[in-house]
Parts: sequence; structure tokens; C-alpha cells
Amino acid sequence: GISPVVGSKKTLINCLNAASFSIFRSLGGKRHEELILPINSSLSVTLHQDQLKTTTTVACSRHFQEDRIWLNGKEEDINQPRIQSCLREIRRLARKRRSDEDLSNDISLAHRVHICSVNNFPTAAGLASSAAGYACLVYSLSRLFGVDGELSLVARQGSGSACRSMYGGFVQWKMGERQDGKDSLAEQVEPESHWPELRVLVLVVSAERKLVGSTSGMQTSVKTSKLLKHRADCVVPGRMEEMISAIQRRDFAAFGELTMKDSNQFHATCLDTYPPIFYLNDISQKVISLVHRYNQHYQDTRVTYTFDAGPNAVIYTLEDHVPEFIQVVRYFFPPETNGGEFVKGLPVGPASLSEDLKTAIGLEPVPKGISYIISTKVCDSGLP
Amino acid sequence: GISPVVGSKKTLINCLNAASFSIFRSLGGKRHEELILPINSSLSVTLHQDQLKTTTTVACSRHFQEDRIWLNGKEEDINQPRIQSCLREIRRLARKRRSDEDLSNDISLAHRVHICSVNNFPTAAGLASSAAGYACLVYSLSRLFGVDGELSLVARQGSGSACRSMYGGFVQWKMGERQDGKDSLAEQVEPESHWPELRVLVLVVSAERKLVGSTSGMQTSVKTSKLLKHRADCVVPGRMEEMISAIQRRDFAAFGELTMKDSNQFHATCLDTYPPIFYLNDISQKVISLVHRYNQHYQDTRVTYTFDAGPNAVIYTLEDHVPEFIQVVRYFFPPETNGGEFVKGLPVGPASLSEDLKTAIGLEPVPKGISYIISTKVCDSGLP
Repeated sequence: GISPVVGSKKTLINCLNAASFSIFRSLGGKRHEELILPINSSLSVTLHQDQLKTTTTVACSRHFQEDRIWLNGKEEDINQPRIQSCLREIRRLARKRRSDEDLSNDISLAHRVHICSVNNFPTAAGLASSAAGYACLVYSLSRLFGVDGELSLVARQGSGSACRSMYGGFVQWKMGERQDGKDSLAEQVEPESHWPELRVLVLVVSAERKLVGSTSGMQTSVKTSKLLKHRADCVVPGRMEEMISAIQRRDFAAFGELTMKDSNQFHATCLDTYPPIFYLNDISQKVISLVHRYNQHYQDTRVTYTFDAGPNAVIYTLEDHVPEFIQVVRYFFPPETNGGEFVKGLPVGPASLSEDLKTAIGLEPVPKGISYIISTKVCDSGLP
Repeated sequence: GISPVVGSKKTLINCLNAASFSIFRSLGGKRHEELILPINSSLSVTLHQDQLKTTTTVACSRHFQEDRIWLNGKEEDINQPRIQSCLREIRRLARKRRSDEDLSNDISLAHRVHICSVNNFPTAAGLASSAAGYACLVYSLSRLFGVDGELSLVARQGSGSACRSMYGGFVQWKMGERQDGKDSLAEQVEPESHWPELRVLVLVVSAERKLVGSTSGMQTSVKTSKLLKHRADCVVPGRMEEMISAIQRRDFAAFGELTMKDSNQFHATCLDTYPPIFYLNDISQKVISLVHRYNQHYQDTRVTYTFDAGPNAVIYTLEDHVPEFIQVVRYFFPPETNGGEFVKGLPVGPASLSEDLKTAIGLEPVPKGISYIISTKVCDSGLP
């Protein structure tokens, strides 16, 4: 950590954090709303910062009149309960530490902070922007106020999935059992180096803002879905164990099948809420069919999909299959331009498509159905 | 009944039957495939024959070489197991009755039958064509061979939902408990005269054939969905009781809410199958939003939707609300032509739309999203 801030100088802290994408979801219901305690454990993969990154700068000064926050250049309401939870919790930890260490000359806790956060990807389009954002915010504030310890507990209170974004690689959010949430935290299952062949393609269907924010959706869900509790209690625990084992064995077929089943079941519980929530649109459904037909053609689970609270598909596959699968997407969702900018991020080699494969998939092409693809991979969290 | 056929003359029987639409579904899983025993009880409403009708003609003659069947003018395979089940079961009942009554001179059982069935609505577009078709087939064969008794037991073995189509009004299919299925039969809950204000609008989204036939979908579902059994065992029985009570009280708000929740949960279990099944498309989702926003505007459940194995919406409402709701659909799904043929079936009076209501619904209109509307109501089955 750095030293506590003393005196009147303005202190700046600048941090990066990567987005993390769920492969096993707890979205869809919470057992405690304010503390953000989930109804089941969950798992995610942290992605490379080059492609999906939040950069957060925090500053404090005795001259600041009040706490303020800017997201992507636009000032937002600092009084949002979740931002307040993070600020309050970090200040409480800082106060506790200082009283433990008797740093009585420190005055920075009285200082107000200015927070500035920028994403290099669309906010609230189902691309895990709040996970990366809150993880980065909490980490930056912890550096500013000189706080150590289990920061995933703090990040969780900003946005549940943010707790997983504090770590790189494959990360589990253990739901915990305690009422106060002190055991509801993130833990790395395997580091990013564990499965270097694993690749991630984000198929961006639409950058429009979602009709229903995922939070309001979740709250409705936990109250009205009759299937959600059954999923949390009876389906997820067993599948979660299978998933961790599949990752540890680097068994792509098992990993892929569980990922698809979890995504579908999550969206099933969204549809079972009242009124129902739809995150998948026609293009999402078409991507799902395409993946199943692709795998069917090879009699092998080579590619898997998962969808968060939006229509964009997150595709996992092994690096050998990336060039061909990109060509499949390009063929069935012909891009607007000549395709030069269709794939962003990690470079993808050329590949040709066999007529057999095209025929086996046999879907009607949808021009411009996919805006672009972000090609990325598993990485560290970006935090030191 | 008519007399058994004797000698060489050709005997013709001509029957009508109405389609019936589920308001509580058992689709999505069967406890016995061949006997078609469902995993939960279900409920449907039988509609007026003028709008959705099957006409079946059966003939038998000593000169016919083999059993044959034509659907909408095209010969189909008579050896389909479900058609065979119905033929076998009717002949078995006829044989039993004749041996009971010692009609030893009767020879018509050896005669082959020709079956000709015509729908006045698109086949396999999720418009309950198989329900009406098998109900009509079984009734026609029963007349031909002089069979009485619980024909819903026979119709069930053709197409599960056909057993409910044997009766008019509000019909329950009791799942039963016996292994041999003898107690899995249809029963009228209330006759068509019970709730004369109830009206039905079928919003035909697409007359294209479905990607996945509902039967193959169901078989996958019962094997792979982890939510389906929970729904059948823990959710449906309670809701079914509430639904019957709502119908008996003519409580539209309760009826409407249960109908929407059951439809959504059914489609949730389809999405939870592996690979997932999608019957709802973008237009279906838009109709769902439209209904919720319409009800929200009036702070009252005035309109309800339900979807079978296809994208077409079946709307229930009370007759007072029909003209305005039709205008709402016309406004948000502007038809191709001047709209003269947009509404088929029962005539609908004029209505105007307030700007308030348009603003409250606030969806982007989708030209030609709905091909046409069938305006109909609850009726008898059409069978004598």
C-alpha cells in the first residue's frame, strides 16, 4: 500500500481493471439486497484489459467540497446507494486500520474524493461494465486511503460480480453462509496461465442500452420466479463442482456444455419472472442455433456460448478453432463494410469454410446481425 | 351412433372439430411417451369452429386395399405411430363392443379406411392443428365403427391435447395416476355458456412451419430440463386449482395473470432444455411487452397472452376491451395493406386510441410484424 495522505496536497491514484464474464451465474436473485449476498455461488473468467478495460482515477484534496463521480466523462449521482456502500466501507476500514496503528496525525479521511471512470467498451450493454468499474473503484479507493485486506468483500457491495473482477483467471464467488456477508467473497480457482489455449470472442449484437437494467430484473426475479430457488438450491451446487473440475482438467467439452446449460437456465429464470425479462433477442437465438449446429457437425463441443444481461454472445473456444469459427460468424452475419474492422482485439488468422460446414449449419444469413467481434482471452485482473 | 357397416357399400362420415388453446400447459414433458401420459394436468379453451376448424371425412369399403390418410389434400404416411394408435384403439373398442353385443354378422372391422382431413388454418404453425385433427379423427372413426364411451382416452393417444378438444368450453386434462393411462382423460370444467364475455384474439406472427416440431421438443425437454420436473410437481398443481377457481368466479384479473405466468414458465422450461428450444421470437416478445404496458396503463389486468409451440400470441380479453386492443395492435404492428383484411372472424367494432395510451405503451412500431388477427371466442367442440 501507499502512505496515508497528509496535508493539503491533491493525491491521484490511477488503476486499470479488466471485465470479467460469468460462466456460471448467480444473477437472478439475491438473498440480501443491500449487502449483495447471492442465492448461489458463481464463477467467472477475467478478460484481457486491452480489449475490455475500465480505467479509474481517484483524487482527494482538502479543497474538495464533496464526493463526486464521473463515468465516461459525464457526472453521475454520487449518492447512488452502491457507490455510497463502497465509499463508506473503504473509509470504515481505513479508520479501523489507523486506530489499530495509532496513526492519529492522519486527516485524509475527512477529505472528499473525486472519482473518474472510463470504459473502453459500451456501458450497460451486458458487457460486465459494472463489474470492472466497481472492482477498479474499490481498488483505487483502497490505495488512496491505504487499506489492505479482503477487498472483494467491499467490491461485492458495489456490484456483486465486481468481487470476482478483483482477481485474474478463473474466479469463484463463494456465496457464503453468514448473515453479515463476511464469508461471501471471491477466490481464484485457477490463474490465467492454467489454460492458455482458451479464447474468448464477444459477439456484439447491439450496443443499445438494455431495456431492463439487470438489477431491477434481479429483484423482480427473486420475488416472482418459482423456478429460481429450485435452480439455486438443487441445480447450481452440483454443476458448480462439475465446472470447477472441468476447468482443472482443461476438459473443454465438459466446460462448454455446462456453460451453455447454465446460460440457458439463467435466461429461463428471467423468462419465469413476472413480468418476464428478455435479454436474448432473435440474433442471440440465431447464435445459439449456430453454435449447436457447428458442434453437431463436428460431433464435438468445440465452441460454447454464454449470455449475460443482454443480447451479446460471449463465445469460448480453443485457439485452434478461432479462425474457422470467426469465418462462420462472418458468413452467417455478413458485416456492413468489407469486414476489415469486424474483428477487434487479438489478431485472428485466415481460414476457409467448407461447403459441408455451411450446409450443416444451414441458417439464413442475417446481414449486420453482429456489429463486431471482440477477440480476447483470459488474463490477470489488471490490478497490481 | 350409426349402424355398423355391412356388405360392400362405401360409408362416409363427416365431422367438424374446433381447435382448443391451452391456458395451462402440460407440453414440455411426458411420463409415458407411447400412451401420451403427461407429467402434469392441463387446461384449455375450445374455440369457435368458424375461425379454426378441422373437417374430417372417413370412409370404409370392402374395396379399399389399405388404410390411407390425406391431410389438406396431400397423402401422408398412415403408419405414423400416433395415427396407428388411434386406428388400433378404435378397432379394439369396436371388436369388444361387438363381441359383448354378439353382433357376429358384422364384417366392417376387416374393412380398410380412407381418412381425409382439412384445416381452415395453417398446419403446424402452433395453432393447435394436431389437437383438432386427432379429436376429429377419433370421433369420425368412432362413428364409422359404432364405438361409444370415453373417446378422450383414444384421442389422447393421437395427440395429447386432442383429448381436451373432444369437449367444448373450458376443459381439463387430468393427468391421472394409473400406469395404463385409463384415468388420464379430459373433463369439462365449465361449458362455453359460462363466461360469454370472454373473447379470444389469435395474433398470427408467422405462418411458416416451426423449426422444431413440438413433439421432438417435448421429448428432449423431459430428458434434459432440470426445471421441468419442479414445475410439474411443485408449481402446476397449486396454480391449476387457482385457475379453475378463477374461471368459476369469472375473475379475469386472476385468470389473466395465471395464464401469462404459465405461458412464460412453459417457455422457460423450453429454454432450459438442451439444446434449447425457442418458440418465442422478437415479435412475440414485443407482444408480451405491449400487453404488460397496456395493463399497467389501466392498473388492471384487462388483456392476457399465452403462446403454444410457436410465435403466435393467443390473447384473451373481455368483449368490452376488444375494439381498443385491436387498435393498439394495429398501431404498433401496422399491417401491410389498408388493414381491411387484418381482422378475420368475429366482427370487431371501431375504437379510437388516446395519445396517453400510445405514450404509455411507447414501443417502436413494427410494420407487418403481425400478419393478421383471428377474432374468435369460446365454443362447443363442434362434435355432436
